[in-house]
Amino acid sequence: MTANTPLLAELAALLDPAGLQTGDAIEVRFRKDWYAPLGAPPLAVARPRSTEEVSAILALCHRHGQPVVPQGGLTGLAAGATPHAGELVLSLERMRRVEEIDSQSGTMTVLAGTTLQAAQDAAREAGWLLAVDLGARGSCQIGGNIATNAGGNRVIRYGMMRDQVLGLEVVLADGTVLTSLNKMLKNNAGYDVRQYFVGSEGTLGVITRAVLRLAPLPSSTQTALCALASFEDVVKLLRHAQRALSGRVSAFEAMWADYYTLVTTRVPGVRAPLPAGHPFYVLVDMQGSDADADGAAFERMLEDAMTEGLIVDAAIAASGKEAESFWKLRDAVAEFPQMWAPNAAFDVSLPIGRIGAFADALRTAMLAQWPGAELVNFGHVGDSNLHFSVHLPGVAAADFPEAAIDAVAYEVVCQFAGSISAEHGIGVHKKPFLHHSRSPAELALMRAIKQALDPKGILNPGRVIDVPSP
Amino acid sequence: MTANTPLLAELAALLDPAGLQTGDAIEVRFRKDWYAPLGAPPLAVARPRSTEEVSAILALCHRHGQPVVPQGGLTGLAAGATPHAGELVLSLERMRRVEEIDSQSGTMTVLAGTTLQAAQDAAREAGWLLAVDLGARGSCQIGGNIATNAGGNRVIRYGMMRDQVLGLEVVLADGTVLTSLNKMLKNNAGYDVRQYFVGSEGTLGVITRAVLRLAPLPSSTQTALCALASFEDVVKLLRHAQRALSGRVSAFEAMWADYYTLVTTRVPGVRAPLPAGHPFYVLVDMQGSDADADGAAFERMLEDAMTEGLIVDAAIAASGKEAESFWKLRDAVAEFPQMWAPNAAFDVSLPIGRIGAFADALRTAMLAQWPGAELVNFGHVGDSNLHFSVHLPGVAAADFPEAAIDAVAYEVVCQFAGSISAEHGIGVHKKPFLHHSRSPAELALMRAIKQALDPKGILNPGRVIDVPSP
Repeated sequence: MTANTPLLAELAALLDPAGLQTGDAIEVRFRKDWYAPLGAPPLAVARPRSTEEVSAILALCHRHGQPVVPQGGLTGLAAGATPHAGELVLSLERMRRVEEIDSQSGTMTVLAGTTLQAAQDAAREAGWLLAVDLGARGSCQIGGNIATNAGGNRVIRYGMMRDQVLGLEVVLADGTVLTSLNKMLKNNAGYDVRQYFVGSEGTLGVITRAVLRLAPLPSSTQTALCALASFEDVVKLLRHAQRALSGRVSAFEAMWADYYTLVTTRVPGVRAPLPAGHPFYVLVDMQGSDADADGAAFERMLEDAMTEGLIVDAAIAASGKEAESFWKLRDAVAEFPQMWAPNAAFDVSLPIGRIGAFADALRTAMLAQWPGAELVNFGHVGDSNLHFSVHLPGVAAADFPEAAIDAVAYEVVCQFAGSISAEHGIGVHKKPFLHHSRSPAELALMRAIKQALDPKGILNPGRVIDVPSP
Repeated sequence: MTANTPLLAELAALLDPAGLQTGDAIEVRFRKDWYAPLGAPPLAVARPRSTEEVSAILALCHRHGQPVVPQGGLTGLAAGATPHAGELVLSLERMRRVEEIDSQSGTMTVLAGTTLQAAQDAAREAGWLLAVDLGARGSCQIGGNIATNAGGNRVIRYGMMRDQVLGLEVVLADGTVLTSLNKMLKNNAGYDVRQYFVGSEGTLGVITRAVLRLAPLPSSTQTALCALASFEDVVKLLRHAQRALSGRVSAFEAMWADYYTLVTTRVPGVRAPLPAGHPFYVLVDMQGSDADADGAAFERMLEDAMTEGLIVDAAIAASGKEAESFWKLRDAVAEFPQMWAPNAAFDVSLPIGRIGAFADALRTAMLAQWPGAELVNFGHVGDSNLHFSVHLPGVAAADFPEAAIDAVAYEVVCQFAGSISAEHGIGVHKKPFLHHSRSPAELALMRAIKQALDPKGILNPGRVIDVPSP
């Protein structure tokens, strides 16, 4: 027990026994998100079962000036949900349920603690697609997906999590429940209050419930791997495919030669559908509803690209199983933390046409500092999103200069007018570099919004942006 | 000259002679937007040529506590840009230019005073589509489209203006220039500051420049008019078409029998492709890139809908000219103000499945109050957006009870959990009814945002939401 005994007693009074963990009873899993070292022991872990309980907890914390760290599935990569010493963890994990699928509106109403996969499955069973998808689907939660504006592999067609959110229920810093469970695609009745909370990483309110937009479930998928001679051709192929397949390009993932060689030679179970040695590879998906017509359109698109010299070689997946094996090329990145340790992983975005030149400049900058560095580039290039990883062979984890590598990388991002985070968010890890992508006026505006919505600074303090203490 | 002579003198010093109108030199066109009576004479009209001039004007007004009404093309329907007595009109009309089309990023950078049509034309010439489109395209300006989050006929496929805005330059209330001219589809570097200004109707900042997302230009369009027996079938047809044409349904406009009869019998030049007498008509567009394959898919979709009994009759446009004549059915609404005066026109949204029942309830409520009332219903039903107009035959314009009709209509919208504005915004006309669609917590949040961004309350005061005087 700490100095905050009165708060803990009040929390205990308003939650059921399973709803509060304190002292040694705090499970270690609440002390870190995926890409972070173990955080300090929090003051306590609150696990509310309802919006009313979330509201009561925040009202209490607001009165006591108690900092709160909201937690979803803890799969974040920016350490935004790792507790700091003395914070109250507010886990939404017991608030999980798909409450409704409205097949006329094409919407799903879901509690924030529902995993993405459970929501996707419920949509699919009802004949719909919940389009946002990412590797952590089995653990990540809808509330966290919204709070971080999650991206993933289907953004090019369906947009990010922001684009799926039609309505929200949010508990504000003082415990006020803001209910805005809109089901309409269009609603211009005053300011669009949803927008303040999507992507705010738990610093402006705690999301408890959402209305999500569903898409018609596609019934046919075409997949190809293409080899290309230059980044310029990668962009040309993107625009060619989008024109030819009007509305149906559903993924466009680029891999540089270094990435392709690494995953096809080092990751077990990943085979090379095309020979190594080409400068670029692109994995392209088309989704539609007519396998025959779509297949014909897809082949014609590739043939035309070949005729125009945009692609050097291509392999079309002959079956769903083969398409899965093509996608293993891209999913192999999940092995990097083990296989290629230590490495620094990045998630940046840049104007699409500059991504090729950026990757070259980045390599030059890294090699100037660390001549033995190895880099791999890959990413959702169709969405202007580049991922890259930097590995220093022979360097022990303890000696790995991650902060220095970050500094070099984000300096180059700044030179190319890019963003230091495309989809992972800022959290704690990227906070020191936010000024590389945001102007003083933008930062001042963010601070004004934070202070207007959380004047006591109790919601996820120290994440995203620092504000003067109230 | 008024009491504010020092301000006018400072304005005159910072603008060129054509940049300032005062007293009798103020053109009457600045005194109203489209759907509003003539407003009071403003203090003056400032017509800046650059962001720097906008910044200087706002810094000056901020210092003097001078209210400012930003103006675009003045085609708004909520009177949000009609000046109130003593306000300074800030017209963006001299800031018009398409500055760049980036064909790799698929973006356009444009000054706020550019007309929508000029921007659309520039995009088309470069092989791209600027997807937002509305009847006022020749007059309305990009800045106003963004400030009001414009909708129109293509929202079902491409989203609203919000969805086209990748980056913004905005001048804040105190003259600060916020430059956020992002070109990336993904950018999670802190709060998404664009979102605060889109749809804020000039109350939070003055938009001076934007980066807009462009779409691949479709090369083929299919159009059909369908007759249906029930609103339930309208919704089923929508979902059927979206599934069958994966990603390519580009408009879905419904018309009730009363609307169809009115426009085909009363509006010159509008012909009836299908007989009158069916309960519902739907105009559906598909856009793609392969006329033959798209045509086949479109016909199959309609045949399947006929087989399943979703549609009773259908006519497919055999040419672009015939498609245009089908669209005249929908565009005929532009004649209502003259032909069917006086009438009250509405722009609401509702969960799609409830629109049919809403229209019935609305009719009942109106007839209970005004037994001779005539109503027509139509709208972008695929986007959950219903328009309707109420006409009282034999009632003179001076006696037309518009406020009472509004009150009855918005009460029914409230009962059906709808929004009092789908796409036209709140402005002044709908401000008294905002609480029908927004909860006290939502309204309080809007006020907090307004006060954080415009603490002196000089930006378009009295529009959208009232805040206590500073």
